Amino acid sequence: MEKVYIGVDVGGMSIKAGVVNLNGEILFKDKVVTDGQHVDVFLGDIKNLLEKIIKEAKDKDLDVRGIGFGVPGMVDNRLGLINKMANIGGRNVPLKEYLKDLNLPIYLSNDANVAALAEQKFGIAKGMENVILLTLGTGIGGGLILNGKLYEGNEGKGAELGHVCLILNGRNCGCGRKGCLESYASASALLRMTREYMKKYKDSMMWEYCNNDINNVSGLTSFECAKKGDEAANKLIDEYVMYLGEGMLDFANIFRPEAFVIGGGISNQGEYLTEKLEKYCKAQNWGYEGAPESKVLIAKLRNDAGIIGAASLLMD
Amino acid sequence: MEKVYIGVDVGGMSIKAGVVNLNGEILFKDKVVTDGQHVDVFLGDIKNLLEKIIKEAKDKDLDVRGIGFGVPGMVDNRLGLINKMANIGGRNVPLKEYLKDLNLPIYLSNDANVAALAEQKFGIAKGMENVILLTLGTGIGGGLILNGKLYEGNEGKGAELGHVCLILNGRNCGCGRKGCLESYASASALLRMTREYMKKYKDSMMWEYCNNDINNVSGLTSFECAKKGDEAANKLIDEYVMYLGEGMLDFANIFRPEAFVIGGGISNQGEYLTEKLEKYCKAQNWGYEGAPESKVLIAKLRNDAGIIGAASLLMD
Repeated sequence: MEKVYIGVDVGGMSIKAGVVNLNGEILFKDKVVTDGQHVDVFLGDIKNLLEKIIKEAKDKDLDVRGIGFGVPGMVDNRLGLINKMANIGGRNVPLKEYLKDLNLPIYLSNDANVAALAEQKFGIAKGMENVILLTLGTGIGGGLILNGKLYEGNEGKGAELGHVCLILNGRNCGCGRKGCLESYASASALLRMTREYMKKYKDSMMWEYCNNDINNVSGLTSFECAKKGDEAANKLIDEYVMYLGEGMLDFANIFRPEAFVIGGGISNQGEYLTEKLEKYCKAQNWGYEGAPESKVLIAKLRNDAGIIGAASLLMD
Repeated sequence: MEKVYIGVDVGGMSIKAGVVNLNGEILFKDKVVTDGQHVDVFLGDIKNLLEKIIKEAKDKDLDVRGIGFGVPGMVDNRLGLINKMANIGGRNVPLKEYLKDLNLPIYLSNDANVAALAEQKFGIAKGMENVILLTLGTGIGGGLILNGKLYEGNEGKGAELGHVCLILNGRNCGCGRKGCLESYASASALLRMTREYMKKYKDSMMWEYCNNDINNVSGLTSFECAKKGDEAANKLIDEYVMYLGEGMLDFANIFRPEAFVIGGGISNQGEYLTEKLEKYCKAQNWGYEGAPESKVLIAKLRNDAGIIGAASLLMD
C-alpha cells in the first residue's frame, strides 16, 4: 500500500482537498463549496469531504497517514484551532477536535507556511535549506523554511513577514501597527499606489489602459503600462520594487537564505519582477558586505501549492 | 574521562579560552593578550593558548571533543574562516585550516550567535525552543535559537538583526543601508541621542551628571538622570525604548519567540529597561492580535557567555 497524506486547502468560500504521495504528486482531489459564516456547516462540509476522500483512498488501496490543513488566517498548531480567518464567522474553531473520529494525525498551519513547504519539498526551491516565501496578495503572507524545516514560531503564529516596520509611524496597518511592509508592498498597496499615480499623472498611459475609469485599476495596470514605456508607470513600479526590495534586504540580513520565493497574484509578472528586485537588492549589496546573495524565484506549484504543502506538513 | 569542549572567546586585543563540560561549567580557563594587526602573530597566539589548554586538559584526565570559536565579526562557518573582524588586519583568515594539526573538530560562529546559544543551553533562556538575543553595544548583535537550535543562515552570515530597516531613507548605517535598527537602538545611538538631547535641553540634569562637559556622556547618563526624574532624560529614554521596541515587535511577528534576551552594556539597566520595553510592546499588543507574548529577559552569563557558548557549538 502506497503511503499518502491528505492536504486540505481551506478557504472561506470553498475547500479543496487532495491525496498526495511522497513524491508530492496529487493522486486525486475533490472540493466543496461552503458557507463559512456558519461554523457548524463549515465543519460539517470539511468532514463530509474528508470522509469521501478517505473512502476513495481506501478503494484505491492507498494508506492514508494523516491530514494537513493550510488555513488563510491564524491557527493554533498545538491545539489544532482556527483562531480566526476571513469569511469565517467563528473564533477559535476546534477543527482538530471536531475531526478526531477520523482517527488520523491532524495538523493545521497557515496558508503561506504551507506554500513555502510545498515549494521547498517539491517546487522551485526543492532541497534548499533556507527559503523565504512571500505571497503578494491582499496582504503579504510569509513562510519560512529554516535549516531545512518549516519554522512556525510559538503556537504557529510566527512568520508574519508582512508585519515588519518599514517606515516608522507610516501608514496604518490592519495589524494595529504603523508602517508595515504589507502597507507598501502587497498587491493592495500596488493598487492604491496606481490610483495615486494616476491622479497625479493625468497623461499617463494608465488612464487609457483603464478606459479612463480609475475603478478599472488592477494589478496589471502599472506593470503592463510600464512595459510599454509609460513614464509614470515605470516610476511607480520602481517605487514598489524599492519597498519590496527593502523588505527583502531585511529578511536577507536576518536569514541569509539561499532563495526567496515570490507567490501571489503579482508573481505572475515573473522575471520582469524578479529581475528588477534582484537589481535593486544587488545595488544595495544585498544589505551586507561579503554576505552571499540569495536567489529570487517565482513560486511554481501555483494553485496546487495549498494541497501539496498541507499534505507535506505531516511527512517526515 | 569526562567529555569537555574548549570554547574560545576571540577579541582583537585578547583571546580567552576555557574548558567547558556538558553542564556548561567552565572547569578552567586561560587567556592571552594579542596583536590582531599581524595575522600570523594572532594565529600563533591562538594556537599556543590552545596547545597549553589541551595539555592541561589531558593532565586533568579530560576528554576534549572539539573547539568552538565566538568571533566578533563575520565568519564563514563552512570553511572556518574569519572573513573580517574589528582590530584584525587580515581578511578571510583561515583559522580552522591553521589549527588542523590539533586534530579536533573546529567550528566558528559569530559572537552574538554564541551568546544566544549559551543563554539558551545554560543561561536565562534554558530549555526554550525559540529565543532571540539582542546585544546592545557599539552595534546591535543578533543571535537566533529556532526550533531549539542555533540558526546561522547561509555560510553562517544570517542573524544580522541590527540591520533591518526601521526608518526608510533614515540615518546612514555602517552596513551601507539607511535607517537600520542599529542606528537608533545600539548603545552608540543612545550616546548620540544623549548628546542631542543635552544640546536641546540646556537645563537637563544630564549636564550636571556630566560635570557640564558633553564629552563625559556615557551609556549611564540618560538612564541615571531619568531615574532621578529628569524630564529630558525620560523623554530620551522613551524615544530609545520606542526604537528598540519597534525592532522587537518586528522580530516578534517574524519569529513569535518564547523570549527575547537582552545583552551588552545597556542590559545592565536590568528590569528598569525590560519593564519599559514590555510596557511599550504590550501597548502595541506585541504586534498582532491574539498572538502569544514573548518574555523580555536580561542575559545572565555575562563575561562567561562567550566561552560557554563557543564550547556549546559542537555539543550535541
